[in-house]
Amino acid sequence: MLFIVGLGLGDERDITLRGLEAVKQCDKVYIEAYTSLLSFGISSDGLSTLEKLYGRPVILADREMVEEKADEILSAARVSDVAFLVVGDPFGATTHTDLVVRAKKLGIVVKVIHNASVMNAIGICGLQLYRYGETVSIPFFTETWRPDSFYEKIQSNRNLGLHTLCLLDIRVKEPSLESLCRGKKQYEPPRYMSINTAIEQLLEVEQAKVDSVYNEDTECVGFARIGSEDQIVVAGTMKQLQSIDFGAPLHCLVITGNTHPLEEEMLDFYRVGKENLEQVDDRAS
Amino acid sequence: MLFIVGLGLGDERDITLRGLEAVKQCDKVYIEAYTSLLSFGISSDGLSTLEKLYGRPVILADREMVEEKADEILSAARVSDVAFLVVGDPFGATTHTDLVVRAKKLGIVVKVIHNASVMNAIGICGLQLYRYGETVSIPFFTETWRPDSFYEKIQSNRNLGLHTLCLLDIRVKEPSLESLCRGKKQYEPPRYMSINTAIEQLLEVEQAKVDSVYNEDTECVGFARIGSEDQIVVAGTMKQLQSIDFGAPLHCLVITGNTHPLEEEMLDFYRVGKENLEQVDDRAS
Repeated sequence: MLFIVGLGLGDERDITLRGLEAVKQCDKVYIEAYTSLLSFGISSDGLSTLEKLYGRPVILADREMVEEKADEILSAARVSDVAFLVVGDPFGATTHTDLVVRAKKLGIVVKVIHNASVMNAIGICGLQLYRYGETVSIPFFTETWRPDSFYEKIQSNRNLGLHTLCLLDIRVKEPSLESLCRGKKQYEPPRYMSINTAIEQLLEVEQAKVDSVYNEDTECVGFARIGSEDQIVVAGTMKQLQSIDFGAPLHCLVITGNTHPLEEEMLDFYRVGKENLEQVDDRAS
Repeated sequence: MLFIVGLGLGDERDITLRGLEAVKQCDKVYIEAYTSLLSFGISSDGLSTLEKLYGRPVILADREMVEEKADEILSAARVSDVAFLVVGDPFGATTHTDLVVRAKKLGIVVKVIHNASVMNAIGICGLQLYRYGETVSIPFFTETWRPDSFYEKIQSNRNLGLHTLCLLDIRVKEPSLESLCRGKKQYEPPRYMSINTAIEQLLEVEQAKVDSVYNEDTECVGFARIGSEDQIVVAGTMKQLQSIDFGAPLHCLVITGNTHPLEEEMLDFYRVGKENLEQVDDRAS
């Protein structure tokens, strides 16, 4: 049996009782490590907090393992109980649909244990979740690759008065160009897009398109380390947010659509300048 | 201090370790009861499972209490630690923004403990969460009140190729018309809209509008008791889903937009006729 267990957003204590029970009964425990384990304070050589809580070793499944070595996980799941741990919700911002499809095709029973994801945790800022349009991803621009398909999606959302969640690029375990040429595996250091970079790229695209979808006065909400004890939530214009240091990753950004009075009232608690007053206390310690 | 604690979607074991710790340290524990406690098997006289787990009494806060008697909760939170428990995520499908705003205005520190909500748990069917448009609500039609503002929203979503989550009406503790006239409080029995009723109303509106936004051959996914051990997920056309008995509430419905191959592959596991094979095993027991 294959358990896909959501860990939530904060640290090891954000697993559910049901999830913990499942992990404890499994023979093998993998943890998905190719989006981010930052908020769990896990590095490749230090899973000890989770291992202590679970009472068993946790195998780090990085991008290569999940994509290329899924067979190992699936073989184990055919003959025993295997847990695959995922930060956030199993079907949240990143998807593990492919692993589930492969498991089901092999006749392996898949059980999903849900948890919070960035897609619902952003509700904390007061913007109603049912008033969001399509979610967009902002990729790191390079000299030669500056994809801007997010622009039209933001435009559609804003035309309908809807908010837009922007997920910001994460580059973990990317093979370096040099190593690809030489044929031996070496990786670039991990990169996480900041809110500042995201806004810079957003404004660059607006300037090129001139469709007036948004500008530096457009109201946004920036989130850093959402769901963690030191999360930061700040509401302000693109220009205002660009001058703020949100600190360590992960960041995400919401571009507001039309707002209702109750949404405004809640956003007021997060306006630029209030961040020291309100942010740090928002999350249970 | 006011803790707003998400309970998740299944039963008492879906609380997080962090949430349980918070509840155990609180002097008073309220539970929001005006959307639904169905999945927690809680009736107005039976909170015992939760109370046993928490080791303290749980006060049922129904619609009247939260709206009219929020003062009691807030007064308690000014001088001691109070937990307000919410099915799903605190900022999920229903909102508790108003209580949070009032608390913050009184200078009460609010801490939010997230959990899964219907908004991310629907990811289990394989339709990507970032490809949803605005969420709509389908209210019970009456003889004289047949609001159809959901129609245009579904139209906008479908024009963009996006999926639409339809939240179905819940009527709990509605004063009866008779009791309103007589001035004494009596309540209608609770009503929960079924997928069958929702589709019936959707098709009625389509027939009146004739804008061809959808029809009885439109692919949908029906969810019953999502996140519970006996959840049902079935993919099929509106016509097909209309003939299925999804059983006890809560139900919700997704109208699919354009689908990608991987989405289709996952949906295939849930197609009409396969429900006995796949559904029941999906949720960890």
